[in-house]
Amino acid sequence: MEENHTESHAYFMREAIRLAREGMRSKEGGPFGAVVVKDGKIIGRGNNRVASTNDPTAHAEVVAIREACKNLGSFQLDGCIIYTSCEPCPMCLGAIYWARPEKFFYACTREDAAAIDFDDEFIYKELSLPLTERKIPAKPLLRNEALPVFEEWRVMEDKVVY
Amino acid sequence: MEENHTESHAYFMREAIRLAREGMRSKEGGPFGAVVVKDGKIIGRGNNRVASTNDPTAHAEVVAIREACKNLGSFQLDGCIIYTSCEPCPMCLGAIYWARPEKFFYACTREDAAAIDFDDEFIYKELSLPLTERKIPAKPLLRNEALPVFEEWRVMEDKVVY
Repeated sequence: MEENHTESHAYFMREAIRLAREGMRSKEGGPFGAVVVKDGKIIGRGNNRVASTNDPTAHAEVVAIREACKNLGSFQLDGCIIYTSCEPCPMCLGAIYWARPEKFFYACTREDAAAIDFDDEFIYKELSLPLTERKIPAKPLLRNEALPVFEEWRVMEDKVVY
Repeated sequence: MEENHTESHAYFMREAIRLAREGMRSKEGGPFGAVVVKDGKIIGRGNNRVASTNDPTAHAEVVAIREACKNLGSFQLDGCIIYTSCEPCPMCLGAIYWARPEKFFYACTREDAAAIDFDDEFIYKELSLPLTERKIPAKPLLRNEALPVFEEWRVMEDKVVY
């Protein structure tokens, strides 16, 4: 009987790890890789490309999600599974929530990432602090002028909700 | 004396709000806008483009940060200020932390966004939960096979740290 790798979680995670290693060795960015899978097929691949593309948002998961959504022609990853070589940072976890896949698998942890000097754990801690106590200051301004835009959205009839 | 709008925080926030309104009205996406400013000049503009580009990561702040970094030729926004028409969602706040601007201003709050049915507040709550208790399940897999990639990164000598 022929072995069917396409349904194996380990098979897809190994592809994510391979992308992490190759992207790192080719100097595209940090040691992170991810794939998005739907119906047993890879529909999006990503590796970290922050340094090579001067894009701080080009994390493996974001790159893979953008590619998968482009291939699906949708901003939602219904029924998809994401495999990432490291627990997502807050930015990537936010992206996962907006894309709404079914679930995700991760290999290394945020603590493993912190141990090689990535800020994931630091950013998780910052996000849990009140706006006024964070390292990057955040200040309110002109809420009264921005709220009418939200009200216009609320009553708009033919909007695409996401 | 001529009024110098370029140094006015309100001036830049009004541009972010204008982008939010225009992007919404032109059906590019939700009612959100953002600008990145350096030395009194706008170097990046963004509005939400999730629906029109099928990209769940195309939030106003992410679009503005990517454009600003492209213009600067850097993945860091040293000395920059971000003006966003709404308090950043966790994804965008993560992106801000990775880009490391000096500070940011926001107009509407995450509660205002929740009031018009955006998931910002929901995602903030999810991120603070342990991985095992979240709505989108996350499962560990093959950490032992991914850790050697991190170790290879740790001892690499000519890497670009970000």
